[in-house]
Amino acid sequence: MLEASARLTSLICGTQPMNDVWSPRATLQRMLDVEAALARASAAHGVIPSAVVGAIETACHADRLDADALTRDAALGGNLAIPLVKQLTARVKDLDGEASKYVHWGATSQDIIDTATVLQLRDTFALLDADLRVACDALAALARQHRATPLIGRTWLQQALPMTLGLKFAQWLDALLRHRARLAEVRARVLVLQFGGAAGTLASLRDAAPAVAASLAKELDLALPAVPWHTQRDRIAETASLFGMLIGTLGKIARDISLQMQTEIGELAEPAAPGKGGSSTMPHKRNPVGCAAVLTAAARAPGLVATVLAGMVQEHERALGGWQAEWDALPDLARLAGGALAQTAQILAGLNVDVVMLALNLGVTHGLILGEAVMLALGDKIGRLDAHKLVEHASKTAAQTGQTLFDVLAADAAVTTHLSVARLRELLDPAQYVGQAHAYVDAVLTLHAAAADKE
Amino acid sequence: MLEASARLTSLICGTQPMNDVWSPRATLQRMLDVEAALARASAAHGVIPSAVVGAIETACHADRLDADALTRDAALGGNLAIPLVKQLTARVKDLDGEASKYVHWGATSQDIIDTATVLQLRDTFALLDADLRVACDALAALARQHRATPLIGRTWLQQALPMTLGLKFAQWLDALLRHRARLAEVRARVLVLQFGGAAGTLASLRDAAPAVAASLAKELDLALPAVPWHTQRDRIAETASLFGMLIGTLGKIARDISLQMQTEIGELAEPAAPGKGGSSTMPHKRNPVGCAAVLTAAARAPGLVATVLAGMVQEHERALGGWQAEWDALPDLARLAGGALAQTAQILAGLNVDVVMLALNLGVTHGLILGEAVMLALGDKIGRLDAHKLVEHASKTAAQTGQTLFDVLAADAAVTTHLSVARLRELLDPAQYVGQAHAYVDAVLTLHAAAADKE
Amino acid sequence: MLEASARLTSLICGTQPMNDVWSPRATLQRMLDVEAALARASAAHGVIPSAVVGAIETACHADRLDADALTRDAALGGNLAIPLVKQLTARVKDLDGEASKYVHWGATSQDIIDTATVLQLRDTFALLDADLRVACDALAALARQHRATPLIGRTWLQQALPMTLGLKFAQWLDALLRHRARLAEVRARVLVLQFGGAAGTLASLRDAAPAVAASLAKELDLALPAVPWHTQRDRIAETASLFGMLIGTLGKIARDISLQMQTEIGELAEPAAPGKGGSSTMPHKRNPVGCAAVLTAAARAPGLVATVLAGMVQEHERALGGWQAEWDALPDLARLAGGALAQTAQILAGLNVDVVMLALNLGVTHGLILGEAVMLALGDKIGRLDAHKLVEHASKTAAQTGQTLFDVLAADAAVTTHLSVARLRELLDPAQYVGQAHAYVDAVLTLHAAAADKE
Amino acid sequence: MLEASARLTSLICGTQPMNDVWSPRATLQRMLDVEAALARASAAHGVIPSAVVGAIETACHADRLDADALTRDAALGGNLAIPLVKQLTARVKDLDGEASKYVHWGATSQDIIDTATVLQLRDTFALLDADLRVACDALAALARQHRATPLIGRTWLQQALPMTLGLKFAQWLDALLRHRARLAEVRARVLVLQFGGAAGTLASLRDAAPAVAASLAKELDLALPAVPWHTQRDRIAETASLFGMLIGTLGKIARDISLQMQTEIGELAEPAAPGKGGSSTMPHKRNPVGCAAVLTAAARAPGLVATVLAGMVQEHERALGGWQAEWDALPDLARLAGGALAQTAQILAGLNVDVVMLALNLGVTHGLILGEAVMLALGDKIGRLDAHKLVEHASKTAAQTGQTLFDVLAADAAVTTHLSVARLRELLDPAQYVGQAHAYVDAVLTLHAAAADKE
Repeated sequence: MLEASARLTSLICGTQPMNDVWSPRATLQRMLDVEAALARASAAHGVIPSAVVGAIETACHADRLDADALTRDAALGGNLAIPLVKQLTARVKDLDGEASKYVHWGATSQDIIDTATVLQLRDTFALLDADLRVACDALAALARQHRATPLIGRTWLQQALPMTLGLKFAQWLDALLRHRARLAEVRARVLVLQFGGAAGTLASLRDAAPAVAASLAKELDLALPAVPWHTQRDRIAETASLFGMLIGTLGKIARDISLQMQTEIGELAEPAAPGKGGSSTMPHKRNPVGCAAVLTAAARAPGLVATVLAGMVQEHERALGGWQAEWDALPDLARLAGGALAQTAQILAGLNVDVVMLALNLGVTHGLILGEAVMLALGDKIGRLDAHKLVEHASKTAAQTGQTLFDVLAADAAVTTHLSVARLRELLDPAQYVGQAHAYVDAVLTLHAAAADKE
Repeated sequence: MLEASARLTSLICGTQPMNDVWSPRATLQRMLDVEAALARASAAHGVIPSAVVGAIETACHADRLDADALTRDAALGGNLAIPLVKQLTARVKDLDGEASKYVHWGATSQDIIDTATVLQLRDTFALLDADLRVACDALAALARQHRATPLIGRTWLQQALPMTLGLKFAQWLDALLRHRARLAEVRARVLVLQFGGAAGTLASLRDAAPAVAASLAKELDLALPAVPWHTQRDRIAETASLFGMLIGTLGKIARDISLQMQTEIGELAEPAAPGKGGSSTMPHKRNPVGCAAVLTAAARAPGLVATVLAGMVQEHERALGGWQAEWDALPDLARLAGGALAQTAQILAGLNVDVVMLALNLGVTHGLILGEAVMLALGDKIGRLDAHKLVEHASKTAAQTGQTLFDVLAADAAVTTHLSVARLRELLDPAQYVGQAHAYVDAVLTLHAAAADKE
Repeated sequence: MLEASARLTSLICGTQPMNDVWSPRATLQRMLDVEAALARASAAHGVIPSAVVGAIETACHADRLDADALTRDAALGGNLAIPLVKQLTARVKDLDGEASKYVHWGATSQDIIDTATVLQLRDTFALLDADLRVACDALAALARQHRATPLIGRTWLQQALPMTLGLKFAQWLDALLRHRARLAEVRARVLVLQFGGAAGTLASLRDAAPAVAASLAKELDLALPAVPWHTQRDRIAETASLFGMLIGTLGKIARDISLQMQTEIGELAEPAAPGKGGSSTMPHKRNPVGCAAVLTAAARAPGLVATVLAGMVQEHERALGGWQAEWDALPDLARLAGGALAQTAQILAGLNVDVVMLALNLGVTHGLILGEAVMLALGDKIGRLDAHKLVEHASKTAAQTGQTLFDVLAADAAVTTHLSVARLRELLDPAQYVGQAHAYVDAVLTLHAAAADKE
Repeated sequence: MLEASARLTSLICGTQPMNDVWSPRATLQRMLDVEAALARASAAHGVIPSAVVGAIETACHADRLDADALTRDAALGGNLAIPLVKQLTARVKDLDGEASKYVHWGATSQDIIDTATVLQLRDTFALLDADLRVACDALAALARQHRATPLIGRTWLQQALPMTLGLKFAQWLDALLRHRARLAEVRARVLVLQFGGAAGTLASLRDAAPAVAASLAKELDLALPAVPWHTQRDRIAETASLFGMLIGTLGKIARDISLQMQTEIGELAEPAAPGKGGSSTMPHKRNPVGCAAVLTAAARAPGLVATVLAGMVQEHERALGGWQAEWDALPDLARLAGGALAQTAQILAGLNVDVVMLALNLGVTHGLILGEAVMLALGDKIGRLDAHKLVEHASKTAAQTGQTLFDVLAADAAVTTHLSVARLRELLDPAQYVGQAHAYVDAVLTLHAAAADKE
């Protein structure tokens, strides 16, 4: 219904539940939910006759509307609420001529559209929070499992020093835990009613306005804000920003995994699934299809957030373009956030870790990545400066000759006088030079446990 | 078919022809058109048997595909072409078992998707160019008609000096004419085939590759580029930029018209239409519904262009996210450009000009906007500096007392000694102080005529 | 020092205190502050000799560095910390040869740069919060003062229904109060140390790492995070988003004020200042120079936020571009936020309100904006439907004949039978039809008082 | 001078010549150049006395201005031209009291600022075009040199099929050649005078206006547009888009090179330079410092282009924010384009190619990347379907057992019956399966030669 356009991104980065929240049908239904709740709230305070509520409620079902006509007429009115109210009134009239006079009483189009959006955001937040919990739990399990698995740390896409795979997972988890905290803050500010009538004063409801507004908020289980917010869009902007930031973190995770999935690196792999990213004639190929979907979301999100931010500059009591620009940008962000998060949760739940390749990659430089460890140990004996010179020289020799750093150092009496071969071997074991990696993992797992306890 | 999502923006800013070009069905059909053309081109050079072409062509119809299955499987493969080829192969097999072996021969998914996009862009360019011509013709007519209609020029949203309404129209026209020139340049670079196979070398077609590629380009009436361009996205980026720039100019026009439509200003109005932007109880209200739609497009376009530009940074021979991010951003831009242009053309075709309000607004400052004209004339007689002081003083007097500048000046012998009352009245006529406005209008109309002649 | 480039935007939208926080010199000094604190923290735990701290502290002054050499060498190393450490080491060596061996001990470039940025953000947050308080207080005073001043509410840039000027101010205030709450949340998450060494494990500090990190955090009065966050940029992203959202709200305020400053509208004006936005020969002209500066910030912010969000997708343990893209985008956002906020506070503090023009504009439609008020009152007597028809007809008559709605209605016995002329006059008084405007103002002022109390 | 802010990005991604074009001093000087030319042009047509030109020209030197005062006063006036004209007038007065009356005659601030920007763009275009030529020549040389060097083609960051290193270079070159063509088109449209006076009508120049405008354009060697374009910003937008697209292509190149520089891949390396990206203790580490600078530019550009596009929506005859937002965004884009291009040219000029690693990486899959080549050859003998099954089976065996594909196939009589061991070895040679790679290289080199000839 409405215009069916090819949202190709959603094909590769979307989830059914989130797509359902923001489907054209759901959008209409949410608007109708607001209209029905408005009828109940108005009747509760004698603004409209109680007798007409039933007919309005009965008519407030998306299936009763003519979507093609809505599509046609929205362009004339400039938004979807105008033709929706028109059709709804006609449907109510079919049921009860009197009732049709009381449809949409006291409200303006933006009241209906904004409040429906808030209701969709409530569902969105719930879906995201649930998937965030799943992703965090998966990362916590991975961090625990690989707490001590050595991994080469890479800076500038170059091998630097060892760390652990658990630490990498813990850092991702740490960021996602912060997003959960942000989500809670945003939710508390955003889930509020929009209800102000034509100029935001609820003038047409006269003295009943405060009571109707309070009841409407209660009907919809939303908070009642101090004042309508038609052209104050900071709530929408912070929602968009939150989605954008979440997608950014997921993009970082997907970037890392896809780099580690490179044929030449092979440390991690997305879980295999029939038909997913494989090739019958190229069995070596394991396309990071899930990561690509997340990275697609990450490529799209910044521009969409920018659109919502730019749209904040609105005119007086109803905007010319800034508000309307949210209509697709916000749902797109919600869908991309939902899709990227679900993809990430799925990847993490079945992530393949190749410990052989992790170990092989730690050996690619023949020990050069551990020069610092030797230098520090040697420095304790002969002073840091001399140790530095010695190890620097040994490293260059190893790099030029193709020998391992161990071989070069073990052959150097200036070294072996102070460090036994056994000690040297130990120093050149990546697992022995991961610093605070274990402690960091534990610290993040503690945060995760605390967050879980709070629920 | 595919996912039907609520493209609410398209409801208020879209056209049926442009939406049709980019509909899910059209997208699939264009991909199938490429597959069919590939079969013909391959058969022409003996790469596949001529006998199988018919079955492939027959199967290449969007209605034969199961859209739900496409939707489901696209996520696994990471793009729409993979399940499309799978389904197409099955459909061909139903017709001719042998033929099914030759479907998609030598091509990679991106060949099909990119070339289909290029075909859609060809249609898009044609629609845009036609509507650009309509909008330009409308503006040329308006510029001609209001060549001499005085209008207050406004800088910083403040009244500055007089100009003409024709000049305003001519400046808009001048910008649109440049967009037509850009469109021609972009079209020449962008309408090219994408065909390189799995790694962009057409290796699997062996010696027949150049001939098949040439024939395929000819079949589709596209140019054959020097080399495949899978991860060189400058052609797509310049298309997106062009759409963004066009929308920017249309947004400027809509901003001006909507400002001139303000209740307090009332110089211009969008053409009235039943149900469009009016209010039965507020007959003074004439909502700039069309302008709002254009401004919505202008609010959305920059973020979408940024997405496409950011996506240019692609990995090796096939991207992880950058390419995929184009899939929705480019069609969205095309739809917004088409919608904004059609809205603008429609507004311009029926634009209401209120010459009474134009004249009234020129009088709001009681002549202060023409102080410069008097100063120059007086300067010829008594020197610029003295004239400046005199007029500055008179202007301040007028502003403070509420008199018109004419009254103040006409009462000042230091002025009337040099300028007769009749001359003063002439100098304070806005129509007499529009500088080169007429000449500029003529110059732009000449450009417009030249552009029309070239067609 | 460093490259002096023309930040023209800062000329019109910047403040000296905020520019000072982010000046090249301050940036260097903050980095040196971190180096000095690191020396103290390391010495406290025996990692470096206590005797060397003095020399390092002495050298840690921006004036001692050769800015030209920094500029030259930063390009080679890829960041500013590398040449800074090199120069710092040389300066320390001049003071104490031994001490120079212990400069930057255990840290990586990004530790220094990120922590310096966090220190600058602390200053930024303090400046913004102080100016937010000033702006909020100004708005609270304006809202109180104009609690009952009628203003025409405008939707779609068309006159709609009356509201109050106080309500407009209260809505702006309401949004700014939410930004203050967000600022507090962001500050709590963002003001943390960055300290992880080359691969984020602090391996080179061996067992002393936790103690040094804790002391360093304490030295700088920053919180110690659970884990280093070199490539988890959500903290930076939320800071950028906050700045963007704040600027968005300020842009909305500036848009409204500049629209109300239009020559033809004249309801509000920025405070006058010698040389500010005036014109000697055009005394009617009062350019909204401050609003333009704020709107410039609002035009720039979304793209800058998008840049920071896009940069979140970073590679492994040190990014290639995403981190570096923050270096200018974040300071630019801070400067624009500071400048826009200061401009707004200044405008609000001296805002000129023209009550005559406010009243005149309420009369532009000859009463049509109050048709609804009459309709409701009449509806109580003769039913809503009949009242609607009657007022609709009267409104059209008024619009066509140029009469006031009062004149038309007062001449209609069908009306005057039910509503006395005195009652009609009352109903057509804009001040009588502002709905909940007063209550809304009070509600927001209560929120403001509560926020002020919390301090 | 002006505000010196830390443009940290420019530290790692900038060039002296481009920074000079856009330095604060150069910006002022360009504005003064326009003022001086205006004096000459006005005097040529008797608008101002010839005798005063000398004094004005003498005063038009940036060193004569008080930059601090400019900085202070720009905020009041809202742009830099207002205090500049004020100071210039004072300086001229020092030289010749009479002359000071004729400074800036007939022009508006934006005339001076925009025309100065166009002059800076002319220098920018020249610098970019020269560096584009250098980069293209370097790529042409590389493409020629490595026309036949096998390289594994990678899709989805996974090894796919062989190609050649020359083809990769040729594809980059192909994109850069298109940018050169675009640059020529943009230059022709953009290098035009801005000159319209206060309301764009040149009214204050009366009849002399056309002649003065023509002479001014000639003085500055710019084209004279049909009409002033103060709020028609498509020319600026296309310039920004061009910069953004160029940076996007450079970012793609940098992304590829940095991926190929990974420690585990090691196919390419930026040229070494003392202090550049190396590490004394980690001789294996070769940081892609140049690529990171280019990728930083690519991360920043989309947001800046979006800002300029969004700014196109301007108000009437002078904008409130949209124009001002260009002031930093456009120079930033120019600097980033210049820096990224220079970095790229430098990287390409000294690019290290490791043919050993290129070959080793082609062997990582033990021949699986050449299964298709065998399948095609075998298909000629036994039919494509059987060949496919056979090779698919062999590939799986190879993948599971760790054997090479050659070993598996050579041990299979079903294969060796049709393909000799020598032929098998040939088929499994990556250099033999690069399809049209050589032809594509030649085609692009031909385009390059043609472009060079045209100069």
